[in-house]
Amino acid sequence: MPIRAYAATAAKGDLKPFEFEPGPLAPGQVEIAVSHCGICHSDLSMLDNDWGMSAYPFVPGHEVTGTVKAVGAGVTTRKPGDRVGLGWFSKSCMTCRPCMSGDHNLCATAEQTIVGRHGGFADTIRASAEWVTPLPAGLDPATAGPLFCGGITAFNPFVQCDVRPTHRVGIVGIGGLGHMAVQFANKWGCEVTAFSSSAGKSDEAKKLGAHHVVNSRDDAAMAKLAGTLDFILVTANVTLNWPAFIAALAPKGRLHFVGAVLEPVPVAVFPMIMGQKSLSGSPLGSPVTTADLLAFCARHKIGPVTETFPMSKVNEALAHLRAGKARYRIVLANDLSA
Amino acid sequence: MPIRAYAATAAKGDLKPFEFEPGPLAPGQVEIAVSHCGICHSDLSMLDNDWGMSAYPFVPGHEVTGTVKAVGAGVTTRKPGDRVGLGWFSKSCMTCRPCMSGDHNLCATAEQTIVGRHGGFADTIRASAEWVTPLPAGLDPATAGPLFCGGITAFNPFVQCDVRPTHRVGIVGIGGLGHMAVQFANKWGCEVTAFSSSAGKSDEAKKLGAHHVVNSRDDAAMAKLAGTLDFILVTANVTLNWPAFIAALAPKGRLHFVGAVLEPVPVAVFPMIMGQKSLSGSPLGSPVTTADLLAFCARHKIGPVTETFPMSKVNEALAHLRAGKARYRIVLANDLSA
Repeated sequence: MPIRAYAATAAKGDLKPFEFEPGPLAPGQVEIAVSHCGICHSDLSMLDNDWGMSAYPFVPGHEVTGTVKAVGAGVTTRKPGDRVGLGWFSKSCMTCRPCMSGDHNLCATAEQTIVGRHGGFADTIRASAEWVTPLPAGLDPATAGPLFCGGITAFNPFVQCDVRPTHRVGIVGIGGLGHMAVQFANKWGCEVTAFSSSAGKSDEAKKLGAHHVVNSRDDAAMAKLAGTLDFILVTANVTLNWPAFIAALAPKGRLHFVGAVLEPVPVAVFPMIMGQKSLSGSPLGSPVTTADLLAFCARHKIGPVTETFPMSKVNEALAHLRAGKARYRIVLANDLSA
Repeated sequence: MPIRAYAATAAKGDLKPFEFEPGPLAPGQVEIAVSHCGICHSDLSMLDNDWGMSAYPFVPGHEVTGTVKAVGAGVTTRKPGDRVGLGWFSKSCMTCRPCMSGDHNLCATAEQTIVGRHGGFADTIRASAEWVTPLPAGLDPATAGPLFCGGITAFNPFVQCDVRPTHRVGIVGIGGLGHMAVQFANKWGCEVTAFSSSAGKSDEAKKLGAHHVVNSRDDAAMAKLAGTLDFILVTANVTLNWPAFIAALAPKGRLHFVGAVLEPVPVAVFPMIMGQKSLSGSPLGSPVTTADLLAFCARHKIGPVTETFPMSKVNEALAHLRAGKARYRIVLANDLSA
């Protein structure tokens, strides 16, 4: 049976109904009946071919929730009927050093769900079993999709950077990733300072779990924070006053990026040495960390704040995101199979 | 009794014999009969008032070895006759968060041996007991001095950055710090790549324990290293091809600075994210890490390669260092008391 999907035939084009034959299910693969699919800003970047690696027809979508329909030869860990999710990666080599170390998200040849293959704005999607993660009881497929890309990207640093509940944590940017990071930091047990330049987001950030909100474009407010934060997570992708953020780090503090800021960050070495500070980045998260994220969200009853569009209104949903109006993540509900 | 020393009366001036009355020994202090004192490049920077914080008459010297002569009230951990050493710091507050965490080298109000007080180019020096570290059997006071500033600066990152014996480590700059860092990395159990732009240092680096030597100004050689090093320690203080060093890091790799590179390092965020890489710095080391360094050097029979001058020839020794001729650290032998 063909897979029914929404595809663009050219960069920046509207999405239109599109069908393709997936061929036989390969060994190791899992076929998922898509229930919902989140929209991530990187779907727009790929649609627009911003990164020069898009192929058309292009089916976006890499924040999938759904139910396993079928499994290929050799798949023993998933079975038809399982509630699952799928994110940015759809296959890792399973043999390289990062894969063998549990860092499948650092696999240099990992297959990406919407790069050179069709994504989750569809009724069906396939992926290699290692990246198809069970959805725990307590998580709703209608809202959990964004955990599989935006969520894991914001959560992984807490694990990778050894953030501790005694730490004073800053979250920079209260958007798709940041609004989840604030919740994670709060439930992680930390004292949370949200940084936003949108005055309107202060109350929302506090509702999400921020203990303090600071306008990162207010130099005086930034100066007051000098030496006070153990960990600052940057989810924004615009250039901010990085020296002020580095100054805000406590001794041994770390400034960590998950937002792909385009302009290089000019790092003065002397303050890094004197305060034993660091600057780092991380991409997404491993399958194990994804499973831990899902369990953490289910236990604490947290997750993305979503707006839902039927998949048939995908172009309206994309326009809503493009206009910067998403509060905070958009999820498409599959009505193709209706 | 007055302390006899060598002091400059103005920035960049020659050092001349100088005496001063130290007054009564304060509670918590230890008085050391100086046997030897290393010369560090920061002695020159302070002599020249490069950092705008020098006071004259200025007595340099913060890589002291010697023997305890007397202890002040309340000192229970050192006693007359103990063989000891003293480095960059001469007192920490012992009450702030870093001090209370064992990070006395990050104490914001720590007293520095040659800042606002007289250093170790003298027959006698005093310091607070916490920074007067016993010299283990097996270490020679005639050569151990440089461990207390250059040595601990190069050793501390191995402890702070969780460098493991399975790591592939790069040491950038084979000078005063780097020639010790190569030895530390080798005895730490690591595979060691030394980076130098001086062709003549290749054989020496290998003799010190480097398994490979790479010219960091050779772009083709640098490109070949892409993704291969877990930890790169920068002991140089000049601008190098930092993007090539970041590219040389393996996934999860770290580029760590102890050399106070003056120009900001332009950090492209995307490669940091994709490879989960980090950049960091650290200053000197704590008293406990200093003790561990000394034990490590004694056990492995490693340490600085030194040239010795009598203290009375201090101006010749400083000129030798200024000319970039030191191989690799200069030690002054106290002949004031002779």
